[in-house]
Amino acid sequence: MALTVAQFQRVIRDRYFPTDSARGVPGTFMWLIEEVGELATALQDNALGKAQPPTPAQRANLEEEFADVIAWLTTLANIHNVDLEKALTKYTDPKRVEGVKD
Amino acid sequence: MALTVAQFQRVIRDRYFPTDSARGVPGTFMWLIEEVGELATALQDNALGKAQPPTPAQRANLEEEFADVIAWLTTLANIHNVDLEKALTKYTDPKRVEGVKD
Repeated sequence: MALTVAQFQRVIRDRYFPTDSARGVPGTFMWLIEEVGELATALQDNALGKAQPPTPAQRANLEEEFADVIAWLTTLANIHNVDLEKALTKYTDPKRVEGVKD
Repeated sequence: MALTVAQFQRVIRDRYFPTDSARGVPGTFMWLIEEVGELATALQDNALGKAQPPTPAQRANLEEEFADVIAWLTTLANIHNVDLEKALTKYTDPKRVEGVKD
């Protein structure tokens, strides 16, 4: 069954909210940045056009790092009570789309 | 209707893939980091427990910055052909969940 954004946000809230809200935003933001750093490493390991293709483990790690960054972002959204599905209407609602993503 | 992770990834691919893949990973990663910086600013503006609550515009901006970071992450995933719904099974599949998100 297809995973919805709201379901994912709920899974993260149910599992991590007490710990994450007790840690607070600054500490949680540091975890996010640590994972962004790990994503950068994984992107380098999987750089397109390298002479050596990435190993299966490197490829699997790249997928995990995307998941980790999204999980920490979702946790920050939960602490601030931001509804990600609603926020993403910036990109999905034709009435709101402005053509660039900045 | 509930937005699925796969639908969102498809919207971003359909709208931005040609530009983003031509720009490449390093340039796209810089855009991601710029948005992470804007998210940090928005988190400060909306800091919990401040004497002055955030203005409605600051609150709306916080939601937008979450959306922007997720959109740039999704673009990077598209360039690397990473299926985010599959990647997120790290958190949603009870057989894979390991209790910590690092």
